[in-house]
Amino acid sequence: MLKLIAEDFIDPTKIEIVLPLYQELVNATRKEAGCISYELCHDLKNPGHFVFIEEWQDYDALDTHVASEHFQRLVPQINAYSIKEGRFTHMESVLFKD
Amino acid sequence: MLKLIAEDFIDPTKIEIVLPLYQELVNATRKEAGCISYELCHDLKNPGHFVFIEEWQDYDALDTHVASEHFQRLVPQINAYSIKEGRFTHMESVLFKD
Repeated sequence: MLKLIAEDFIDPTKIEIVLPLYQELVNATRKEAGCISYELCHDLKNPGHFVFIEEWQDYDALDTHVASEHFQRLVPQINAYSIKEGRFTHMESVLFKD
Repeated sequence: MLKLIAEDFIDPTKIEIVLPLYQELVNATRKEAGCISYELCHDLKNPGHFVFIEEWQDYDALDTHVASEHFQRLVPQINAYSIKEGRFTHMESVLFKD
């Protein structure tokens, strides 16, 4: 299981333009076979800082996502309104033994 | 509903010391009434970069968490092994209307 935090920094004056693009991306991504969860959040203190909390079956599932038609079409449109480069954190859950 | 990402940057040589402290923190926090979810992840590319993905009923629930005995006791012990200041992102979920 692969967890990913993907952060976008969108021009705060362009949020209304970007939200429908995010909506299409979220809806299409959640239908992917390897997608376990894909949630979009918005920073309460920094408007335009959007954070995806993602869970994928494995790296192959994430590669399939990045290669998908919807990702390749929508992400460049979203990035056109970025004010700084995105940040990506690939993670695994820490599972404690009792 | 309040989402929070809390990031710690722990000295990679001290991870084995910190993990039992995290375990106690996770177990006690999940029993709090206002805690919806509390997951600890570890950055696959940057050892020592730990990321909590948290979900709270509201700000009051988070305040109660921070004031709790287990938080006040364990977090300073964990922070003693930090190599840089933590990062905290307070968020709300973006819910799309269909």
